[in-house]
Amino acid sequence: MKTAAIILAAGQGTRMQSDLPKVLHQIGCAPMVVHAMASANTLEPERLIVVTGHGGDLVEGAVRDWRDDAIFAVQAEQLGTAHAVQQAAAGLEGFDGDAVVLYGDTPFISGDTLAAMRDARADGTAVVVLGFEAANPGGYGRLVTGPDGLQAIVEAKEATPEQLAITLCNSGVVMADAAILLDLVRAVGNDNAKGEYYLTDIVGLARSRGMTCAAVTCAEQETMGVNSRTDLAAAEAVFQWTRRARALEEGITLTAPETVHFAFDTHIGRDVTIAPNVVFGPGVTVETGAEIRAFCHLEGCHIAEGAQIGPYARLRPGAEVGGGARVGNFVEVKNAVLHAGAKVNHLTYIGDAEIGERANIGAGTITCNYDGVFKHKTIIGADAFVGSNSALVAPVTIADGGYVASGSVVTSDVGPGDLAIGRARQVNKPGLGARMVARLRALKEKR
Amino acid sequence: MKTAAIILAAGQGTRMQSDLPKVLHQIGCAPMVVHAMASANTLEPERLIVVTGHGGDLVEGAVRDWRDDAIFAVQAEQLGTAHAVQQAAAGLEGFDGDAVVLYGDTPFISGDTLAAMRDARADGTAVVVLGFEAANPGGYGRLVTGPDGLQAIVEAKEATPEQLAITLCNSGVVMADAAILLDLVRAVGNDNAKGEYYLTDIVGLARSRGMTCAAVTCAEQETMGVNSRTDLAAAEAVFQWTRRARALEEGITLTAPETVHFAFDTHIGRDVTIAPNVVFGPGVTVETGAEIRAFCHLEGCHIAEGAQIGPYARLRPGAEVGGGARVGNFVEVKNAVLHAGAKVNHLTYIGDAEIGERANIGAGTITCNYDGVFKHKTIIGADAFVGSNSALVAPVTIADGGYVASGSVVTSDVGPGDLAIGRARQVNKPGLGARMVARLRALKEKR
Amino acid sequence: MKTAAIILAAGQGTRMQSDLPKVLHQIGCAPMVVHAMASANTLEPERLIVVTGHGGDLVEGAVRDWRDDAIFAVQAEQLGTAHAVQQAAAGLEGFDGDAVVLYGDTPFISGDTLAAMRDARADGTAVVVLGFEAANPGGYGRLVTGPDGLQAIVEAKEATPEQLAITLCNSGVVMADAAILLDLVRAVGNDNAKGEYYLTDIVGLARSRGMTCAAVTCAEQETMGVNSRTDLAAAEAVFQWTRRARALEEGITLTAPETVHFAFDTHIGRDVTIAPNVVFGPGVTVETGAEIRAFCHLEGCHIAEGAQIGPYARLRPGAEVGGGARVGNFVEVKNAVLHAGAKVNHLTYIGDAEIGERANIGAGTITCNYDGVFKHKTIIGADAFVGSNSALVAPVTIADGGYVASGSVVTSDVGPGDLAIGRARQVNKPGLGARMVARLRALKEKR
Repeated sequence: MKTAAIILAAGQGTRMQSDLPKVLHQIGCAPMVVHAMASANTLEPERLIVVTGHGGDLVEGAVRDWRDDAIFAVQAEQLGTAHAVQQAAAGLEGFDGDAVVLYGDTPFISGDTLAAMRDARADGTAVVVLGFEAANPGGYGRLVTGPDGLQAIVEAKEATPEQLAITLCNSGVVMADAAILLDLVRAVGNDNAKGEYYLTDIVGLARSRGMTCAAVTCAEQETMGVNSRTDLAAAEAVFQWTRRARALEEGITLTAPETVHFAFDTHIGRDVTIAPNVVFGPGVTVETGAEIRAFCHLEGCHIAEGAQIGPYARLRPGAEVGGGARVGNFVEVKNAVLHAGAKVNHLTYIGDAEIGERANIGAGTITCNYDGVFKHKTIIGADAFVGSNSALVAPVTIADGGYVASGSVVTSDVGPGDLAIGRARQVNKPGLGARMVARLRALKEKR
Repeated sequence: MKTAAIILAAGQGTRMQSDLPKVLHQIGCAPMVVHAMASANTLEPERLIVVTGHGGDLVEGAVRDWRDDAIFAVQAEQLGTAHAVQQAAAGLEGFDGDAVVLYGDTPFISGDTLAAMRDARADGTAVVVLGFEAANPGGYGRLVTGPDGLQAIVEAKEATPEQLAITLCNSGVVMADAAILLDLVRAVGNDNAKGEYYLTDIVGLARSRGMTCAAVTCAEQETMGVNSRTDLAAAEAVFQWTRRARALEEGITLTAPETVHFAFDTHIGRDVTIAPNVVFGPGVTVETGAEIRAFCHLEGCHIAEGAQIGPYARLRPGAEVGGGARVGNFVEVKNAVLHAGAKVNHLTYIGDAEIGERANIGAGTITCNYDGVFKHKTIIGADAFVGSNSALVAPVTIADGGYVASGSVVTSDVGPGDLAIGRARQVNKPGLGARMVARLRALKEKR
Repeated sequence: MKTAAIILAAGQGTRMQSDLPKVLHQIGCAPMVVHAMASANTLEPERLIVVTGHGGDLVEGAVRDWRDDAIFAVQAEQLGTAHAVQQAAAGLEGFDGDAVVLYGDTPFISGDTLAAMRDARADGTAVVVLGFEAANPGGYGRLVTGPDGLQAIVEAKEATPEQLAITLCNSGVVMADAAILLDLVRAVGNDNAKGEYYLTDIVGLARSRGMTCAAVTCAEQETMGVNSRTDLAAAEAVFQWTRRARALEEGITLTAPETVHFAFDTHIGRDVTIAPNVVFGPGVTVETGAEIRAFCHLEGCHIAEGAQIGPYARLRPGAEVGGGARVGNFVEVKNAVLHAGAKVNHLTYIGDAEIGERANIGAGTITCNYDGVFKHKTIIGADAFVGSNSALVAPVTIADGGYVASGSVVTSDVGPGDLAIGRARQVNKPGLGARMVARLRALKEKR
């Protein structure tokens, strides 16, 4: 069965108190709408339709970054979820198959859950609704079930006492044949307190037309929605704890799991050890046996087997750390390859560079990669030695085995095995230090 | 009604195991006694009397920093809370109004609670006592109430089984007419196991004189007192979680709220995002839309709209970061203004400086602001460019559009649009690097 | 009574998913087997026998680091705990006294608990088994007790419903006369589902030979075993919370205890304050009244009274920080002594050095201690002043009161009170900066 996914992402999210559209707030370094897209992707949908509204341009941009054939439908006025699904009609033109309705602010629906919904559809159910057993049903809509499946979805406000005792609640996620879904949402009325068109009404409509409905259930946590920054922080925590548990199961040591923050796409190999207080941004891969020490900040980088990173290392996009290489404290690496066994251990900035195998970069070395307009590249050969506190003014190449004396400013290339020295000769002035300080102190006392 | 606040702050706090007086231990970067003063201030007290004892000079100094007209009373011997209040008599000389007794080790009494006590006083009650419903009443004094209000405060040790069943407990906070309060505390005796004068006895005394007493209640958490470092850590946690919840409600993103540590006076604008592991010291203001990345440490600084800070940025007192400016990793800024759009992104120390709009400060730049005796200022103009690994020896000025070549030591002023270069010329010695290393290795093998 | 401790450390720990033997995974920076050895050491055992198997060489090496007279027994095939104890026979040759069986993956058995077991032995019990009241007995072996002591240890799978209701469970820790223990374990059979020789069977065997058995109990947490990375993280958390609670009780301020990570051997004096996010590696001692600010990483170092460390200071092995000295942000200190009152406050690397009393090391200073082959020493005298962004090329000595001008490269010794200056003279080229930038921008536009 072909599937089209419809993601509702038009809401303003007033309670977020933000200029950013709600669905662009991030969890695990990816916008919430992207998490919803990832849920949808487990069904390998032929079409992905995103219904936008508030901040539509921004949402569209973010979605396209992840799926460039996404279809957008604009819900100019927010008149309810059924109304939102109606906007997807143009996007479904000529489509024959199932449609699933997901939400841009509900990031945790799992592939297993959607597969169970698809199975229920395959069993001949017309409309499949996703429900969950709520610990505190409170104001959630209740799923009223009977011998022939799902009877109705009842809003808490309109529920009878018996219905309020039901703990099976509505997640809002719905799957049905696309054409039928459109028919149903068009039939939904807005004769209610808020004057909105509710998607939940399609169950009653479907049954009145003699169709069968069914509820599939998932864990309550999957249906977690985000309406405020407090919710967002809670959802982030759920994401992190799920991710940390997976890392532990996969044979990774997290000394203090509660202090490690993963991104949605972090890949970590077996027998990697991660010390406390490590933050992963997007796009990080760490290979087997590498060691990430405390206080590291990693984004868009690749760390090969057995490399040692940190403490206090910052790897930025484009950092490639080779096997057994070391990046130490207060070191920033950006858009640079460190080949196997290279060492950059102390207070160094490596930007737009290539560092050869086993090369040793001394403390306080700076690649001067920017001239105010252009970025230039620094190339350092295998077994090269860059003495401490050197400035390498790019573009510049230090060949294999090149040796830079400490404290040098290197402005021209260094040949293989050559020594480069670029520092002033030291002059000592006997007693002058003491006299200077004495004079300054006298001045200070006068003041 | 005028109010005088009496804060009891004489205790040694033996269980703190500290040389520092107990009330000077900090919560949210402010001494506990200052939190008690903040509670008192919600009543806009005409007089603030602090009863000191152990470490009185230190406490006096800390209190004066926050309210220079505070009155101090010394309780030389710690003979009980009633005795402590007696010491406030001189401070209340000529004062006509209410007095409230607060505690220097009880930091969380809210303004609403004190307002409720004042309301109870306005209703004609002579003595108003603050109580709370205790989850575990244990050893707390019990508030015995009856149809005509508060009957007595009974110590747990002296309570009957019926009284022990009471869960309404005594916080110690009391409000009464100042003159009456003094009369009552002078009448308290010390005929008890410890031979101390207990403030709690004033309820019985007041009733025996035909006065009415009443209990006002607050949440137990407000009455939390600190007697040990464990209590102090627990109180800090309460402070932080309260503050974090408020930040989320105000439209601030905290990716991992449990890793952000606020100070008592942190001000954060809407739509600010704060990554994991950020520590706020006192005196920080962050404007709308700024971004604080991971591992930042901020004190006494102002961050304007849309500025980006960190990761690993340390802003010290006097740091002013302009709109859209950037302070990057391993950068320390102290007593310095960064105008709008300035960039100081990597491994840099900026102290006692002014950086012009859009100026770019290269990696590894150091303002050499100290000559061993005096601090000097570095001024950098708009659109200036300071090449990486430069040392700017203050006092020095780089004018608008000035350009410093990488690796320079700048000791004299640079005019507008001028290029300054202060580095030695590089010399390459063919093959010498390889020979040196070979010789050193041979030496090493011999050893 | 003499004691021999037998530590079973042969298991592979498949569920750890690791190449490292299970007992070498660390808690509080020490391998788990070392924690078990520390438990054993509370009995001052005359012999320590470690039964190794998987990764035996690595385990042996780690154990010897801590006790060089440890005896090793190899269990080539893992045929069960009784079989493992049999391997200790050679190590017990000629030994007359008690033997206790401990586990390399059970790190928290306390000295008090082992003392209670020894007391039970002293009362004449032949076999003493350590049990615990389990919150969720589940699959644990049950200790069946009767009027004459411990009757049997019953595996959960083979237990009757009455026995399953027992909550007193088996920890596996056993104490008995060494010769008797060996006799018993040799008598254990393997007629069970897994075909393994279970140590638990010795209770039944002992009783069948007319010996008395008894159970001693401890808190469930002490018996916590580690079988997965999840368990390891949980055990680390137990270790940390126990250690943090002790620190608070000892009069140390931990602003945010949950963010401070101790090692097994961290020593902290009274009235030390530790800010959020501090990581202690092994071998750290902090004296009274010192202050450890946020984001510090400390290993193998000593911090004297009143010193101030951090934020973002990294002290590596051999760092000695004198009384009242200061190590500031983005500073790394390795194998170096900072005498009293010395200041190293900003972006500095101090390696293999000695810094005199009250010496001031400017921002961005680098000790250039490595020439690619050897490490060399930097010696700085009392009251010396090293200007910012200087490179000190070791071996080099700056005598008392020596003064290094900012931005200097120091390659030769500086006498007492002398001024050393080693930087190029600055040249300004009028208007050249502006012209260069204009040309680069033009170039950029063309591209």
